[in-house]
Amino acid sequence: MSLEKARSLPLSTVHIQDSFWSRYIRLVKDDIIPYQWDVLNDRVPEAMKSYCIHNFRVAAGDMTGAFRGEVFQDTDVAKWLEAVAYTLEAYPDEGLEALADDIIELIERAQGDDGYLNTYFTLKEPNGRWLNLMEGHELYTAGHMIEAAVAYYQATGKRRFLDVVIRLADAIDEQFGPEENKCHGYPGHQEIELALVKLYHVTKEKKYLNLAKYLIDVRGVGKNYFLQEEERPTFKHIFPDFKDYDPVYSQSHLPVIMQNEAVGHSVRAVYMYCAMADLAYETNDEVLMNACTRLWNNMVNKRMYITGGIGSSGILERFTTDYDLPNDENYSETCASIGLALFGKRLAEITKDASYMDVVERALYNTVLAGIAADGRSFFYVNPLEVWPDNCMLGTSKEHIRAVRQKWFSVACCPTNISRTLASLGQYIYFQENDKLYINLFISNKTKVTLGDTELDITLETKFPFENEIELNIKANKCKRASIYIRVPNYAENFHIWVNKKRNEEIPIEKGYVVIEKEFCEDKLEIVFEAPARYVRANPKVRADAGKTAIVKGPLVYCLEEMDNGDNLAAIYADTSQKLLESYDKELLNGTLVVYGKGKRLKDTKWHDDELYKTIEPELEDMTFKAIPYCFWCNRQPGEMMVWLKEHM
Amino acid sequence: MSLEKARSLPLSTVHIQDSFWSRYIRLVKDDIIPYQWDVLNDRVPEAMKSYCIHNFRVAAGDMTGAFRGEVFQDTDVAKWLEAVAYTLEAYPDEGLEALADDIIELIERAQGDDGYLNTYFTLKEPNGRWLNLMEGHELYTAGHMIEAAVAYYQATGKRRFLDVVIRLADAIDEQFGPEENKCHGYPGHQEIELALVKLYHVTKEKKYLNLAKYLIDVRGVGKNYFLQEEERPTFKHIFPDFKDYDPVYSQSHLPVIMQNEAVGHSVRAVYMYCAMADLAYETNDEVLMNACTRLWNNMVNKRMYITGGIGSSGILERFTTDYDLPNDENYSETCASIGLALFGKRLAEITKDASYMDVVERALYNTVLAGIAADGRSFFYVNPLEVWPDNCMLGTSKEHIRAVRQKWFSVACCPTNISRTLASLGQYIYFQENDKLYINLFISNKTKVTLGDTELDITLETKFPFENEIELNIKANKCKRASIYIRVPNYAENFHIWVNKKRNEEIPIEKGYVVIEKEFCEDKLEIVFEAPARYVRANPKVRADAGKTAIVKGPLVYCLEEMDNGDNLAAIYADTSQKLLESYDKELLNGTLVVYGKGKRLKDTKWHDDELYKTIEPELEDMTFKAIPYCFWCNRQPGEMMVWLKEHM
Repeated sequence: MSLEKARSLPLSTVHIQDSFWSRYIRLVKDDIIPYQWDVLNDRVPEAMKSYCIHNFRVAAGDMTGAFRGEVFQDTDVAKWLEAVAYTLEAYPDEGLEALADDIIELIERAQGDDGYLNTYFTLKEPNGRWLNLMEGHELYTAGHMIEAAVAYYQATGKRRFLDVVIRLADAIDEQFGPEENKCHGYPGHQEIELALVKLYHVTKEKKYLNLAKYLIDVRGVGKNYFLQEEERPTFKHIFPDFKDYDPVYSQSHLPVIMQNEAVGHSVRAVYMYCAMADLAYETNDEVLMNACTRLWNNMVNKRMYITGGIGSSGILERFTTDYDLPNDENYSETCASIGLALFGKRLAEITKDASYMDVVERALYNTVLAGIAADGRSFFYVNPLEVWPDNCMLGTSKEHIRAVRQKWFSVACCPTNISRTLASLGQYIYFQENDKLYINLFISNKTKVTLGDTELDITLETKFPFENEIELNIKANKCKRASIYIRVPNYAENFHIWVNKKRNEEIPIEKGYVVIEKEFCEDKLEIVFEAPARYVRANPKVRADAGKTAIVKGPLVYCLEEMDNGDNLAAIYADTSQKLLESYDKELLNGTLVVYGKGKRLKDTKWHDDELYKTIEPELEDMTFKAIPYCFWCNRQPGEMMVWLKEHM
Repeated sequence: MSLEKARSLPLSTVHIQDSFWSRYIRLVKDDIIPYQWDVLNDRVPEAMKSYCIHNFRVAAGDMTGAFRGEVFQDTDVAKWLEAVAYTLEAYPDEGLEALADDIIELIERAQGDDGYLNTYFTLKEPNGRWLNLMEGHELYTAGHMIEAAVAYYQATGKRRFLDVVIRLADAIDEQFGPEENKCHGYPGHQEIELALVKLYHVTKEKKYLNLAKYLIDVRGVGKNYFLQEEERPTFKHIFPDFKDYDPVYSQSHLPVIMQNEAVGHSVRAVYMYCAMADLAYETNDEVLMNACTRLWNNMVNKRMYITGGIGSSGILERFTTDYDLPNDENYSETCASIGLALFGKRLAEITKDASYMDVVERALYNTVLAGIAADGRSFFYVNPLEVWPDNCMLGTSKEHIRAVRQKWFSVACCPTNISRTLASLGQYIYFQENDKLYINLFISNKTKVTLGDTELDITLETKFPFENEIELNIKANKCKRASIYIRVPNYAENFHIWVNKKRNEEIPIEKGYVVIEKEFCEDKLEIVFEAPARYVRANPKVRADAGKTAIVKGPLVYCLEEMDNGDNLAAIYADTSQKLLESYDKELLNGTLVVYGKGKRLKDTKWHDDELYKTIEPELEDMTFKAIPYCFWCNRQPGEMMVWLKEHM
């Protein structure tokens, strides 16, 4: 814990040019950000109205009208600006920056003289500020504003937005804290804590770190704050469903350092864990760090889908219990997997242990990417591992499952969250700590790293995840002894490195990274490993997956779709005694590796449609099934989808 | 359709003395009715308060106070009285009758001078009568009152309660009907329609039949009535969840004769279908009868659990789509299976087709009986086919699933519905139509049947469902030519009948009944068939059961429980190539037939608790599993339960 932590390289220095990811990053810049801008301005006829800009205009006095939308509607604007910031950092664009500056100016004018900034409370509940932390999302919304402003400042150097959120943070700091005259509450939806740590970093103003620490430390201590709120005679619910509030939902049932299990609303959980990791590092708090590790282990070893999805319950979007991972009724919100990646990245930065990045990579390549259509125009909020469109009916237990991606949502956290994640993907590839450079993800890019007085120009080229050869060309402006840490993924077999064409057999491995320590001048590193498509099983305690198998290749989880395999995927058995066949199809889904397997299918030829139960021997017929990456599902035509296949035993 | 329908024998003539059922019927009389009486009077400390009698006392002016409980709270009293009536009919009991008379007197005093009777509206919403048919349950509650009063009149001959509901029905008749000055609405929860047909039968007053017909015929015609209600400026929701009301929920989306699929809330559906069948018969309406048949076929051939459960969705307790029969998240309300039995019984009476009774028997022996604990003191409302107690968590998608029976419910329809069903079981055993006697269920009893001027004393003795020998002794007070129709269950093999010790090889079968037509004087019929425990499969279109098998013996569905088979029942495969072994255990669960099977279990010895996914070959080990009847599950200690087992193929 006394070590320095590794840190991401600035996005401005990491230029991604990758066969797998670049089209999504281009989509963010060229399509998604403009599209989301239109949505925020209610200009997309086929999408639900967002009223986001409308609300700010009304709050700024530019027009009259009422607040519309959800209590946290402002966050869509914040996350859009955050995505814009990351994009601008990597790809400067005057027009986009001017658009962002305009909206920042609007936000500034919507801010109160006292620093308060929230269009819902300003317009709809002016006397309700800070009185419903349980449901009001004020601190959550402020957190997203702060994150966006910090990103925008880092991208552009412009202070206007940063100054807005500094005034906002100061207003919050005046309101919350241990002092007797301050509010001893904390957010119903965590988020501001990690944002305040970011604000501390750019401002060096310790009070923001202290405020973040206060909000984390006070959580779950003594009588639950939200239950206290609820007891006030003037309290009124924003969401009527929240009567009989259970503090577990917002992880406020126990002080955070006493929490051992990932519980409650999964996005709230992981955002809180991120702040806990930040604070554990900043304040060198081993007890808090141990809580992070315990929560991480419980989450990823007992409560996480193979796709990096978390949150097994459709109702309340929450964690349930160990090994409860139903495939067809789970929530597994896209935002939750983004939060999982953010948490894992922090733990990897602190511990420099590559195993965290195995999980981060799993989340990014599967659930996060599945959340967005190949054209960037529609999104999944909920990410089941098995879908039968017929039963995804509104007004039923599967009403949260959508069999096709949606244009927009009334609660639109996920689309904007995906944008900001894709736009900031460069932050996951490299970490640096003094003269050590960590390479976490195999995504082609060019970057420039400053190690002390030396600059390294690095080019990483690969066709990963469909091929597993990575070439690194490193050119130093003057020769420099340094260490390059290259992650050895947990799925890699026969991992080898050639350093300047010489196969290096005895490279040390530290916490999942091979370490190349040498004087770098002009060097070529070639990394090769095998990651064939293979059958994976779940712990038999996972009732939903017992007797089933999933196909993975490297970080990619594969799935079957109806259009490739016919309907009723539940009738298919994988014959795991036979080899999987990999085949790259350059026409399919913008180019993807397809996996074929041998299987058997339950025949239904002896059944009439109006027979439901009878005594009959089941019959199987041989078949070949075709699997595609889960992240690409539902990009052709809607239909059934399935990750976990029955295994013929 | 021009045929006369067969009818149940009066309960007073059917004396059940059965090794399987009698203890439940005794429980109804000796324990459940007194226990429920205490519950209705809020005298059971560990059960939720019902406030039922409280509400009537307040409405009658005996005490002051507010209405407490749900909008349909009165129905618990009605169903209690209905169960009491059936019980009194079979087992006269002065004390119980006096108790019932007291409460009837109280009900009468709670009735308005205008005949209106409903404590919720009288006490809480006196100006809200008939203004929220969508949610108000006024007609539903009235229906249960009428059913109870008819039953009580038939049991005791006393008119007081009947006169109360006649005044109530007259008040409703003044309110509803096709005339321009009347309300053209219909109940949000169907029930009164079938009750009005019963009232017509005892009173011979045709206006009740006409009112029932009106309420069925007007349903779903033109603009939906509930949506019209909702548009009224003064409309207020009783259940906030019901905003954005979907008429499918209450089967009011289409005129009933145009409905082809069992949709919406399953109890509402089957209660409505019962009335449709009644009216189809009474009015000789072939179009309506065809609708009944279509709906029945859709329901039982595509949307019914093997246990006779219906309603696949936990949310809104409703039907979903064809073949959607998830085992661990379904609702399958006990009341819905009772309604299914009531509907099937009606179709069997009209068509004299035994196949309807196959389904009725399935519902009674499995879901209905599972709804009540062996001690009669706790109840299941929801009847999944697979339970893992760990994930039956409040505030999750499985929050409606209870891993143990509950003492009482705030919405307590099921316990009282089970009581009245058990108390009226005799009505399912026999039907009579002129000189034809139908024997539907193999439940030991003595009865007296009047065929014209002849009386037959019938004794039916059997140890069914654990043995399949049935002895019928028939003694006529004078010899009489008659036909006895004996149901040949769809699971029966090698069905044989000996008539007076002579094996009868060429007995005609009519619609699933063997017909013994002869002059009966003093005769013995012996029926023997085989119904070994066997493996059944579901249509492979049922995704949830594909590759699985269920064990049935006769009408009984079997299940595995954790206490017999260890935890993680999902890891068990049935080896269906090996025979099932039946063994009667007289100590177990008051005596039951246990079924043992050979199987294999997925080993987890190579897995650590903190490993979730890995590449490992699955290993199976041989095991013997033990299955008990589903209706008896969770009568020992709580734990996992599973009906559909994986099949080793």
